[in-house]
Amino acid sequence: MNVMAKRDAPVRPDLNNPELNNLAMSKEAQPLFDAVMKHIEENVAPISDKFFELGEGRKDNWSWAPGQLELLEGAKNKAKKSGLWNFFLPGSEIGRGLTNLDYAYIAAELGKQPLASESLNCSAPDTGNMEVLEKVGTPEQKEKWLKPLLNGEIRSAYAMTEPNVASSDAKNVATRAELDGDDWVINGEKYYISGAGDPRCKIMITMVKTSPDASPQFQQSQILVPIDTPGVKILGPMCVFGHDHAPRGHMHIKFENVRVPKENILLGEGRGFEISQVRLGPGRIHHCMRSIGAAEKALDLMVKRGSTRQAFGKNLIALGKNLETVSRARIEIEAMRLMVLKAARAMDVLGNREARVWVSMVKAMVPERVCQIIDQAIQIHGATGISQWTPLAEMYAQQRTLRLADGPDEVHHMVVGRAELSRH
Amino acid sequence: MNVMAKRDAPVRPDLNNPELNNLAMSKEAQPLFDAVMKHIEENVAPISDKFFELGEGRKDNWSWAPGQLELLEGAKNKAKKSGLWNFFLPGSEIGRGLTNLDYAYIAAELGKQPLASESLNCSAPDTGNMEVLEKVGTPEQKEKWLKPLLNGEIRSAYAMTEPNVASSDAKNVATRAELDGDDWVINGEKYYISGAGDPRCKIMITMVKTSPDASPQFQQSQILVPIDTPGVKILGPMCVFGHDHAPRGHMHIKFENVRVPKENILLGEGRGFEISQVRLGPGRIHHCMRSIGAAEKALDLMVKRGSTRQAFGKNLIALGKNLETVSRARIEIEAMRLMVLKAARAMDVLGNREARVWVSMVKAMVPERVCQIIDQAIQIHGATGISQWTPLAEMYAQQRTLRLADGPDEVHHMVVGRAELSRH
Amino acid sequence: MNVMAKRDAPVRPDLNNPELNNLAMSKEAQPLFDAVMKHIEENVAPISDKFFELGEGRKDNWSWAPGQLELLEGAKNKAKKSGLWNFFLPGSEIGRGLTNLDYAYIAAELGKQPLASESLNCSAPDTGNMEVLEKVGTPEQKEKWLKPLLNGEIRSAYAMTEPNVASSDAKNVATRAELDGDDWVINGEKYYISGAGDPRCKIMITMVKTSPDASPQFQQSQILVPIDTPGVKILGPMCVFGHDHAPRGHMHIKFENVRVPKENILLGEGRGFEISQVRLGPGRIHHCMRSIGAAEKALDLMVKRGSTRQAFGKNLIALGKNLETVSRARIEIEAMRLMVLKAARAMDVLGNREARVWVSMVKAMVPERVCQIIDQAIQIHGATGISQWTPLAEMYAQQRTLRLADGPDEVHHMVVGRAELSRH
Amino acid sequence: MNVMAKRDAPVRPDLNNPELNNLAMSKEAQPLFDAVMKHIEENVAPISDKFFELGEGRKDNWSWAPGQLELLEGAKNKAKKSGLWNFFLPGSEIGRGLTNLDYAYIAAELGKQPLASESLNCSAPDTGNMEVLEKVGTPEQKEKWLKPLLNGEIRSAYAMTEPNVASSDAKNVATRAELDGDDWVINGEKYYISGAGDPRCKIMITMVKTSPDASPQFQQSQILVPIDTPGVKILGPMCVFGHDHAPRGHMHIKFENVRVPKENILLGEGRGFEISQVRLGPGRIHHCMRSIGAAEKALDLMVKRGSTRQAFGKNLIALGKNLETVSRARIEIEAMRLMVLKAARAMDVLGNREARVWVSMVKAMVPERVCQIIDQAIQIHGATGISQWTPLAEMYAQQRTLRLADGPDEVHHMVVGRAELSRH
Repeated sequence: MNVMAKRDAPVRPDLNNPELNNLAMSKEAQPLFDAVMKHIEENVAPISDKFFELGEGRKDNWSWAPGQLELLEGAKNKAKKSGLWNFFLPGSEIGRGLTNLDYAYIAAELGKQPLASESLNCSAPDTGNMEVLEKVGTPEQKEKWLKPLLNGEIRSAYAMTEPNVASSDAKNVATRAELDGDDWVINGEKYYISGAGDPRCKIMITMVKTSPDASPQFQQSQILVPIDTPGVKILGPMCVFGHDHAPRGHMHIKFENVRVPKENILLGEGRGFEISQVRLGPGRIHHCMRSIGAAEKALDLMVKRGSTRQAFGKNLIALGKNLETVSRARIEIEAMRLMVLKAARAMDVLGNREARVWVSMVKAMVPERVCQIIDQAIQIHGATGISQWTPLAEMYAQQRTLRLADGPDEVHHMVVGRAELSRH
Repeated sequence: MNVMAKRDAPVRPDLNNPELNNLAMSKEAQPLFDAVMKHIEENVAPISDKFFELGEGRKDNWSWAPGQLELLEGAKNKAKKSGLWNFFLPGSEIGRGLTNLDYAYIAAELGKQPLASESLNCSAPDTGNMEVLEKVGTPEQKEKWLKPLLNGEIRSAYAMTEPNVASSDAKNVATRAELDGDDWVINGEKYYISGAGDPRCKIMITMVKTSPDASPQFQQSQILVPIDTPGVKILGPMCVFGHDHAPRGHMHIKFENVRVPKENILLGEGRGFEISQVRLGPGRIHHCMRSIGAAEKALDLMVKRGSTRQAFGKNLIALGKNLETVSRARIEIEAMRLMVLKAARAMDVLGNREARVWVSMVKAMVPERVCQIIDQAIQIHGATGISQWTPLAEMYAQQRTLRLADGPDEVHHMVVGRAELSRH
Repeated sequence: MNVMAKRDAPVRPDLNNPELNNLAMSKEAQPLFDAVMKHIEENVAPISDKFFELGEGRKDNWSWAPGQLELLEGAKNKAKKSGLWNFFLPGSEIGRGLTNLDYAYIAAELGKQPLASESLNCSAPDTGNMEVLEKVGTPEQKEKWLKPLLNGEIRSAYAMTEPNVASSDAKNVATRAELDGDDWVINGEKYYISGAGDPRCKIMITMVKTSPDASPQFQQSQILVPIDTPGVKILGPMCVFGHDHAPRGHMHIKFENVRVPKENILLGEGRGFEISQVRLGPGRIHHCMRSIGAAEKALDLMVKRGSTRQAFGKNLIALGKNLETVSRARIEIEAMRLMVLKAARAMDVLGNREARVWVSMVKAMVPERVCQIIDQAIQIHGATGISQWTPLAEMYAQQRTLRLADGPDEVHHMVVGRAELSRH
Repeated sequence: MNVMAKRDAPVRPDLNNPELNNLAMSKEAQPLFDAVMKHIEENVAPISDKFFELGEGRKDNWSWAPGQLELLEGAKNKAKKSGLWNFFLPGSEIGRGLTNLDYAYIAAELGKQPLASESLNCSAPDTGNMEVLEKVGTPEQKEKWLKPLLNGEIRSAYAMTEPNVASSDAKNVATRAELDGDDWVINGEKYYISGAGDPRCKIMITMVKTSPDASPQFQQSQILVPIDTPGVKILGPMCVFGHDHAPRGHMHIKFENVRVPKENILLGEGRGFEISQVRLGPGRIHHCMRSIGAAEKALDLMVKRGSTRQAFGKNLIALGKNLETVSRARIEIEAMRLMVLKAARAMDVLGNREARVWVSMVKAMVPERVCQIIDQAIQIHGATGISQWTPLAEMYAQQRTLRLADGPDEVHHMVVGRAELSRH
């Protein structure tokens, strides 16, 4: 199986493909969408305040605060029983087999509630990892790791970014894996491994350099590394604007002579980039659609605050440029929503590879603008906007991070720009 | 018939209406779309250079250059014979009865060729005027003015904007019409009456104040004024960034005791704003969709120039931020295209009034961004970009004008902002 | 003494006043500037890493980490012995009597090193508090509070902002002080009281409403409240993008029947706004000048990172728009620097009140743009930019906060805009 | 004499040079400044309306409208008699020997009145041409061309830009001059030769390639070409956003075997770039300072219009973001003014070459922002803003052109960015 053919040839988007513009949710998905809304309202929203009041988890032993996991697992069980589970796998027999387009509608709603995605077993990076395992895993790999992930029994991480090289160019990845007998021996350093601090996290998909003498596209591989393998040293959490996000964390990890069996490689030696194509398209779309939910929430908070506070004898919203700021936010949210739906649709119609330009368009467009909208919501809240009393500062940090993750904005603009040149 | 109910109550857009997101062109429209493309290629493109080489028309006697009209009327005849004619009237028995959505696809193509719209009898302000006459005209009014307009035998103008008041607030319109016996007697001043200099222009729909004592929404009326009525004094053309656009022009007109029969009023006294709702929704959508065609053309020129000129040892397009500029232009064009399609679709599904917020969104969004894209195309062309050797400077002037016409950006942001507040 | 006359009459800036454009540092200040640079290099830079490695202070008992204060006080002692102390008081006999202009040059350097200001006893909010006490304090107030502040023995806070009203309009301040016998009895709630968690902080200048029946400009007063007064309840720290900045903190404080002697009022009843004019001008200038130091540091980090990392076969700085980003940052830093120097100069030449428009110009201009520059530096660092491995995320949070503190951007634009209107 | 040493080595700006920040006008210049203001008020302002009412000059025979030149020459004579003449030559014995800094103050005022510069014999491109002739001309060249230029008897042009190459990279200049006996024989094509249509224009300084085999920096030369030399074919005017600016024009010129004597070369073969350094620094500063005058005028018109028109029951200026727009314009104008003054001062203190980075900073900063300010003034004027009834559309076209002339923005950002890198 060759998931990906010529990676670097720019895809020329067919701008006039009429099939790509039917962006309506399918009739089949509507009941599921409604059920998810109901689940969020009944099972997620009510536990959220309590969950966050319990604190951030213990930093000293990096564990959940007592009672937190129980709340979360309770919501998961309810969702699982109702069959609201694993619907991120497009066209798969596992889960609901939703199209990317239908899932995108749901993801936008998930983006408004921080616990919603996980309650449905649909949170990153598990979704991407499960999609990869499902598409390229061996039966043994699926049995050992995909099954408990699909059951929501364990969590996983994706170890890609490295502190010592510019990972925006994935060819720079330097963590080395060498075959020694029947084992891969891994040495190197990764950071921002999100979720690797969670005590439930058991497995990491790790991008490594196996074949330094191959052509640049074929030097990398992806290998399954159980997190308790000797030599995996978690050096500590990386912060995001001051947050360490305990107890999940974004861990800084050193690999010192980490040995895993030969068969832990995914798909085969030198096919690391090929696998990336599988995971990154959907992952980016999910992120962007959740970002739109976040922008909706920020706009909602902006309007509420602006309509209930007064200064200089008027509601804040009536002062200066505030109403135009609201208008621009609404316009941009609608434009972004349609673009994400179109990228999802393109993946459904054209396949992940041919849809690549559409995905890069939304990845370059959405987090940058959502950051601005949240920033404007902060401004209208005054000091409260940057405090722990609103979710805005945390939301900002999250969206700001997205402009760097899964390829920084600049790389996606490069993809889109080159595709445009290739049309001429 | 009450076309418009409570004008000022903000329309709360139902952001989740699933019907609004099917933005695909209908299958029925595809052959027409293809036929229009073919017509442009075969009948319009070949005459354009010649048409513009013949010059700008004579300014001294405000007439067409010899041979110009023949070229244009030739293309019109070919289109008419092929039935490519008047397809802007949505749901009407006249013309093709295209939906707004289907028409939007065609309009984007028309925006790339300055003569294309008129060759199909689909150019502003005739389209809006015909739509108004068709919807609210009496049988006599239709016979006298709509028929020759539909036949492409005459052209028309729309006299709304006034030099002495801020027309962004339509309630400011001050040109006065008073009943005197069986006549309306009109006095006042209008400017930027586009097309009123064209020798083929025979009729103006004129916004006047008939009922100063009514509530502000019901003071205005619209009256048909034949352009050769005594007292209609064309003072001269208004320029647009230095262009007078002879021989069509954007005329400055004084009304001095202009008498027209009582029955020249449209729909009835005090219903001027109600009629505006009929004309402005579609008009704005047509403009915006043509703007997207213009942006496509600018991006096309930008890429071509950037790929064929060198400086500092590289193609211009490879220098500095130029490739990212191309990427951002492509992303914004696609986002705008989807937004215009959605606004068109909203008009089809919800009606012009309920779709008002969607129309304001695109009117506030599109011309502003298209101006920026054209400006970036100018920059990459160097001095040639502002010259008569590319269409860019003329295109810029046109888009810049759109940010002021049919409601300046600020008014549309106000509509969108208020609708957002009303959702809370 | 009437420090402030008609507060709300907009000051018309004399744009052509030739005296305002001599922005050179005075010859007298140059040796002091050099001595400060030397002090930073020799006494501050070497202790900084150690200081921050010791951690953030204990959150449980809200105290400094062992050894931290010793480091800081050591640097303070060295500065004090060298006479590098308290030079923020313009034209005063206390301290060095530097002009605002000369001090601005020094402040820009202080902005590059987080511990530098405090090592010279020149950090906010002590500077503003000392300036107020020096200008309007009674001999007793000066003896009790100004003296130990000038000696660097205690620290202080400024309690202005309230969580329940939009403090951007200072007239909204609602914390109530009522005379009861010889005491003021204070009730209300304040938040973001920076530094109030520091165990060295002993005194708060508190803005309260004393005279609800006076005209809006004269309802507020400022009162000295020792932090250990019964009824002062510190509810906890407010966060800034997730940081609680222990052990100094930005505290949330409730005033419950807090009693202080009548003579703790500053200047007199109803003169709270008048005092604000004294403190805010210089305070804003100091902040903005330090912001320019921060922008310099961000640009420095941006260039260093961009020149030492590679992607796609080039240094990052040579990719895409990065070099233009560097250029724009440099241009904007220089423009901001000149504007801050001019505002400082205007305060020296015209006095704080007449210079108000110049101060508002820089307050509205500087933090917004410095945020953008830091954000661009973050982007070029990738994930490291938002981590604890560079100071960028912390710097961003600080500058973002400044856009809300001492009047949000919007209020300063209002001041500048109105002044412009008044010129016509 | 070697005016320019190593052209391409980036100049590292000494950001802390204290001498550069004294930006006050010298006392000696103040009376001259006042006299110029008086001259503009008494001699220029009164003739301007009449001058422009006389029209744009005849396009058919490319001559001035009857009476126009008389008005202009009358104002020139008055200025000359009062000694208000030729003060652009810094440090020269000719003219007033003003420093660049003092001249910059005057130029800002000239920028508000379209006829002011020429009335003082201080208009481009004559100023640059005279500066070049004065610095590098032979006695014969000075006698023949500098003298009548200094006397205001003739006008001149500068032929640099070419239609067939990207002139942003000056090394691309392709017009060829070859020695044939005692003559240079010139062949090639130039465009946007401003002023070459003016019947008073007698001489062109022409950039040509004389030495194709030299290293790229030394292939070009500058040669004096009398405009009536056989073979100089004026093909017609280039437009600027539709304006042909008759009768001065920006001409498109073909050089067909144009023969001029060997001694018409300036400075010597291969020294074309060296001469450019002489002319471009001051020229750019003059342009930018006049741009600031233009921005002042736009802001003035914006405030006036906004304060005298009503919509929705308020003055336009009180609606939405308009007041903030005014504030931002004022802040940016002041920031730009200081930057231009600093660049002028840098030229005085450091010399043109060492000040190069400062000049590039203002060239990259000023026209871009002034365009935006004028654009905002247009928006608040509605349709009148783009018409011939305000100077705004013409001003916009002029500033937009400046973003392309004398090096496009991008080239100046490259210079500034590289200088920044070189500081590390």
